[in-house]
Amino acid sequence: MYAIEIREPGGPETLRWSEVDDPQPGAGEVIVDVVASAVNRADIQQRLGFYPPPAGAPPYPGLECSGRIAALGDGVTDWKVGDEVCALLAGGGYAEKVRVPAGQLLPIPAGVSLEEAAALPEVACTVWANLFMTAHLSPGEILLVHGGGSGIGTFALQLASAYGVRVFCTASAKKLEKCLLYGAERAIDYNDEDFVQVVKQDTEGHGADVVLDTIGAKYLAGNVDVLATGGRIVTIGLLGGAKAELNLGLLLVKRASITGTTLRARPIDEKAIIVEDVREHVWPLIEAGRVRPVIDRAIAMQDAAEAHRVVEASDHIGKVLLVR
Amino acid sequence: MYAIEIREPGGPETLRWSEVDDPQPGAGEVIVDVVASAVNRADIQQRLGFYPPPAGAPPYPGLECSGRIAALGDGVTDWKVGDEVCALLAGGGYAEKVRVPAGQLLPIPAGVSLEEAAALPEVACTVWANLFMTAHLSPGEILLVHGGGSGIGTFALQLASAYGVRVFCTASAKKLEKCLLYGAERAIDYNDEDFVQVVKQDTEGHGADVVLDTIGAKYLAGNVDVLATGGRIVTIGLLGGAKAELNLGLLLVKRASITGTTLRARPIDEKAIIVEDVREHVWPLIEAGRVRPVIDRAIAMQDAAEAHRVVEASDHIGKVLLVR
Repeated sequence: MYAIEIREPGGPETLRWSEVDDPQPGAGEVIVDVVASAVNRADIQQRLGFYPPPAGAPPYPGLECSGRIAALGDGVTDWKVGDEVCALLAGGGYAEKVRVPAGQLLPIPAGVSLEEAAALPEVACTVWANLFMTAHLSPGEILLVHGGGSGIGTFALQLASAYGVRVFCTASAKKLEKCLLYGAERAIDYNDEDFVQVVKQDTEGHGADVVLDTIGAKYLAGNVDVLATGGRIVTIGLLGGAKAELNLGLLLVKRASITGTTLRARPIDEKAIIVEDVREHVWPLIEAGRVRPVIDRAIAMQDAAEAHRVVEASDHIGKVLLVR
Repeated sequence: MYAIEIREPGGPETLRWSEVDDPQPGAGEVIVDVVASAVNRADIQQRLGFYPPPAGAPPYPGLECSGRIAALGDGVTDWKVGDEVCALLAGGGYAEKVRVPAGQLLPIPAGVSLEEAAALPEVACTVWANLFMTAHLSPGEILLVHGGGSGIGTFALQLASAYGVRVFCTASAKKLEKCLLYGAERAIDYNDEDFVQVVKQDTEGHGADVVLDTIGAKYLAGNVDVLATGGRIVTIGLLGGAKAELNLGLLLVKRASITGTTLRARPIDEKAIIVEDVREHVWPLIEAGRVRPVIDRAIAMQDAAEAHRVVEASDHIGKVLLVR
């Protein structure tokens, strides 16, 4: 088969559509004929050499895909060859075929095309696992999402607002209006406004019960400052660096928590639990049209380098698909 | 009645046994005739002017007491005048009488004297709420407790080891042996040993699943370093300062969390839930003799200044009681 190889750590030009060995299904795994994949920030980190795939994962980038099941490994009984699926991957989505643990497969939600569905697994699992399973976000609470226009952001805005959460987000000026369409009650221009001040002001001083953070160090002090009593910060990305001063005194007074997580490195059985939960709680909202995949554009998989350039420029809204 | 007044922020000498107004029970409250109270580090912070009592709490120090119910406010039906009790307080334990929300009362566990019981409510509620309700500590997990010889420490060692947790702690050299008696599998001399190295070595590189931390800034980097994948730091004190650099990257890789909490400032209904949980899960272990109040010495309540000097010198093990 062909797959996008990372020839050496570096810029987008290091990505090359190359002939490689076909994957073989192990016990409990299936092979998916890939129709589409999508670009995640983690793929760029992997390309740069900062985020190696976990042990046992395919070496090619790609944390999600959609396609058709081509082969079943031993012990897989819930799926059959030919089923249209999308899947959460530990890697390998930028390829003609990929090997997937059966617990990471999801059906294509009614009303979503097979191609579009490639944009769902990573964001749906990340947002569900962090906001609802980890941070126990509840209806009526206040959520602040950094990067409201990103793939994660657009999904978090929709899902949280569908759950009756009051949603605030930060974004660049040209994305603010879109963020309102996806469910934010207020989108904050991160260049011109102070998110701490805006959220506190618009919530009568309450602040945010949960912060979904992809920025890290640069926003740590602000995130702790904006937090309500009993608030929870979930940091899932470090676009603004890793190390910053933490005021534990403020954390104590607020009875607040900071959790760092990644989805990719979790054990297969944990991923299966998240995927099952997403199928139960998130898929029905997608099928009801209340949460939609947000796709900026689709680019041919061979041109993954171009897709990475688009994501690195950060002018897109939602996800950039890679299609075959 | 008489109570210990803090005349002005300062040293132990500012504490004065003074005649003050008797407390009156509000709806849902009782008045307890105090037999004993106990010194907590928070009392010293309050004396220094750094930790004012929450709104509505008595102005006198004292976060726990034991005694007999002297009067009932409206709507209190589960208790009667004359009942021997101990109680979690938001303040006011250093006094002849104290006003207590009924949800913060506990019976005296069988086998514990009325005086000794004054040493239980604050540590039992703090340790239970943080280790079990917040950090979800489970049998077979590994716990690191900083300050194993303190009131919190000696209680945490006993309770966690009774729950089948493997317990490590730090302490000063002269307290190490006692920590082993209270259930630590290894007590680490914080002056001479590196707790990160010892815990990792003795757990085959696993590290600590939960850290119960009363030190704060000084140990933040070490606490993050010693943490296992999925680990949880609960910081409940700041003896080593409030501000330190946090490496969020390490937190992400470990899928770990840091929670800051205090018990005193929580709303009355949250305290009642904790107290009920403690009565159900901790009191039976005390009655079975598996967890005991650890009392360094008892000092007359009028001499609270002397008791504060003892606690500030940090040579004691467990709690210092104030008795009438």
